[in-house]
Amino acid sequence: MERIRPRTLSGFMELLPAKQVQMERMMEILRKTYSLYGFSPLDTPAIEDAQILLAKGGGETEKQIYRFQKGDSDLALRFDLTVPLAKYVALHYNELAFPFRRYQISKVYRGERAQRGRFREFYQADIDIIGDGKLDILNEAEIPAIIYKVFTGFGLRRFQIRVNNRKILNGFYAMLGLSEKSGDIMRTVDKLEKIGPEKVRVILLEDCGLEEGQADEILKFIAITGSNDQVLAALEGYAGRNELFDQGLEELKAVTKNLAAFGVPEENFAVDLTIARGLDYYTGTVYETALLDHPEIGSVCSGGRYDNLAGYYIDKALPGVGISIGLTRLFYVLDEQGLLNPDLPAAPADVLVLPMTGDAGPAISLAQTLRESGLRVQLYGEQKKFKQKLAYANKLGVPYVVLLGEDELAAGKCALKDMRTGQQLLVTAQEAAQRIQEGTDVSKIPVILEK
Amino acid sequence: MERIRPRTLSGFMELLPAKQVQMERMMEILRKTYSLYGFSPLDTPAIEDAQILLAKGGGETEKQIYRFQKGDSDLALRFDLTVPLAKYVALHYNELAFPFRRYQISKVYRGERAQRGRFREFYQADIDIIGDGKLDILNEAEIPAIIYKVFTGFGLRRFQIRVNNRKILNGFYAMLGLSEKSGDIMRTVDKLEKIGPEKVRVILLEDCGLEEGQADEILKFIAITGSNDQVLAALEGYAGRNELFDQGLEELKAVTKNLAAFGVPEENFAVDLTIARGLDYYTGTVYETALLDHPEIGSVCSGGRYDNLAGYYIDKALPGVGISIGLTRLFYVLDEQGLLNPDLPAAPADVLVLPMTGDAGPAISLAQTLRESGLRVQLYGEQKKFKQKLAYANKLGVPYVVLLGEDELAAGKCALKDMRTGQQLLVTAQEAAQRIQEGTDVSKIPVILEK
Repeated sequence: MERIRPRTLSGFMELLPAKQVQMERMMEILRKTYSLYGFSPLDTPAIEDAQILLAKGGGETEKQIYRFQKGDSDLALRFDLTVPLAKYVALHYNELAFPFRRYQISKVYRGERAQRGRFREFYQADIDIIGDGKLDILNEAEIPAIIYKVFTGFGLRRFQIRVNNRKILNGFYAMLGLSEKSGDIMRTVDKLEKIGPEKVRVILLEDCGLEEGQADEILKFIAITGSNDQVLAALEGYAGRNELFDQGLEELKAVTKNLAAFGVPEENFAVDLTIARGLDYYTGTVYETALLDHPEIGSVCSGGRYDNLAGYYIDKALPGVGISIGLTRLFYVLDEQGLLNPDLPAAPADVLVLPMTGDAGPAISLAQTLRESGLRVQLYGEQKKFKQKLAYANKLGVPYVVLLGEDELAAGKCALKDMRTGQQLLVTAQEAAQRIQEGTDVSKIPVILEK
Repeated sequence: MERIRPRTLSGFMELLPAKQVQMERMMEILRKTYSLYGFSPLDTPAIEDAQILLAKGGGETEKQIYRFQKGDSDLALRFDLTVPLAKYVALHYNELAFPFRRYQISKVYRGERAQRGRFREFYQADIDIIGDGKLDILNEAEIPAIIYKVFTGFGLRRFQIRVNNRKILNGFYAMLGLSEKSGDIMRTVDKLEKIGPEKVRVILLEDCGLEEGQADEILKFIAITGSNDQVLAALEGYAGRNELFDQGLEELKAVTKNLAAFGVPEENFAVDLTIARGLDYYTGTVYETALLDHPEIGSVCSGGRYDNLAGYYIDKALPGVGISIGLTRLFYVLDEQGLLNPDLPAAPADVLVLPMTGDAGPAISLAQTLRESGLRVQLYGEQKKFKQKLAYANKLGVPYVVLLGEDELAAGKCALKDMRTGQQLLVTAQEAAQRIQEGTDVSKIPVILEK
């Protein structure tokens, strides 16, 4: 037979079983956490009408998108989960209850130039809350609580949710008479952490065409740091000069006010005036999330408040707030940095049942009994030497093996072998179930282990 | 702003939130059940090299596949989960432990002519067990137990897993000197339920070119029915005349032997000599699953034993056994037949918390407390009239609402309103959590409810 060399396309993540188990655990935590906050799961098609996906147009998107014909149809693969959400809400507007809270954990596609750590197919794990006409600021205040719950759920402690408000920035630039340049300025300030204040100043002067006084005011402004209370107090010093600024400041105060009630510790949250998010789309609160020991990774969870979700599709004001986690990239980076917990069991089963007699019946029954206790049980029926059977259990990382030979059957018991200690005990099926349960409770073992 | 009319492509399922919750529950049951039997989750890319996906070639596949260029790459969307599995096993052969048991629940793509109940994007929920060189018959015997567990997990009772063995059929046709026509004959016999024995006979004679005696022998053979024991006894009457037949009979006996130990009741299982599966791919045991009250739907879970998973990619004998559930179609049909349980709660939250005072702090804390009990809690912060807030809870189907006004705060309690009965109680946060938990335990409520 003529053979084709098997390969997986570059830029597409395909994990080995043990790693996939860790990825699945992260997805489970995301689903569970998003559900705890009352978000509905959503699942939109990966393929949409290209005209609809590209309604907004824009250079990079159009270049990266996977677009193709099938029959007469002009089709494309979604490149994010926000545009499909906008389409969904516009299409089903009359059937939805607002605020509409949805989560979606799905793959998106971008045909970028392949490079290390960049993916062409990757999971996004998004939540959004969409209002009909209005949306209360309380929703924006709740988002950091959800981010906090997700990342602590993964096992992370050393992270910081950074929050700012675009109205504060836009109001401040208006005070300086720089409203028309605010987009350019924000994109420049966004690079602060990467290139430092000196280079930001140069770009502001040379590329954005600011006067020295304006640039200095901006650098002074974004240099405001300290505790949340200190930053908010410093911002009060600018109050009363611009309505938009004042509104943004009120919103920022509302977002920070109830952090303790929301269960977010001070050390995991910071008002950060350098955060702007590159997208023009955001109009109020903006969020980024940094891993404190890995600043080079950049934000692992970003989002913000927007005023117009679906203007391309429907004549309704649909403001919203949302965040997105680039799950595939996050997983890749965590793995590369050695942060995935090696103690998280990655075996596909809690126990391997080995029939040791000609009649497999008793082993089958025992496996069923163990499953009724909620254990993941693999029945191993291959005709191999005993050593090979144990080698298989070891290769999979299965923590327990149960042997059923003539002696065990005669005694109405089974032999339970702990693969980690080598200890072997003669026990009843119920005792075996209990011991395996105690030895395989993974609910307290975090996915991520910081050093 | 110029607007584009939002739409979802025909042939692509996109559910409203309440229905999506039911779909998610089915997926959760599938993941959970497959895990209980020791299968590893797998997630392969939706896009593969077109040459690799089409290694086997074949007319229908090539016509239906979504294939496109990106740069120099000839790409295609997967049309099933078996070809990507074959690629995966061939590519990672040295890193896997065999038997390799994997499950995958993912979308696949077929650009078929759109028609009612046919989907171009649909979920398959597959399990496969792959051996290296050999694979014990015990694995084939275990498959009906897994199918049984999945469908009873959904809430179904009136279904039947039908099993046959291709070796019995091929051996039988060899006895009649019809080996070369066995493919045509099986495809014809496969239509028995649809067109009846008379028409099958006509096709066998006219299209397949059989002699009358041969056709009669075949019709007599496939008319063998009764209990499993009766069918097996009838098959013994053909034993000793063809080696392949005898081997198939031994396998079929091994598959049926331990059904009770595997927990599969007699009424949910039948040896059925008319089952052949249209694919040449299968070589031994074959499975179909029928909903007894809805024969028109056809098989909702099919599969079988094959000898050569990945011959197009690797020079290794990789026999396996697998089944596939066409989840999207199954969900569509269950919904259409009114079999989805209307009593399965579909609300995105168990309770809606309504702050009734200016300071949202106590309501936020209460929501956190309720979440710590595992409840799904939505905090509702919109400035609306009380009536509108309750109308929102009703539209979502949220079963409980908690009100926190001045009186409740002063008493250190909250008002818990049961939206189904209208009853309202003044209780502590802990009492509220307990009552809501008792009133929202969905673990015993089946997804499917037969009439």
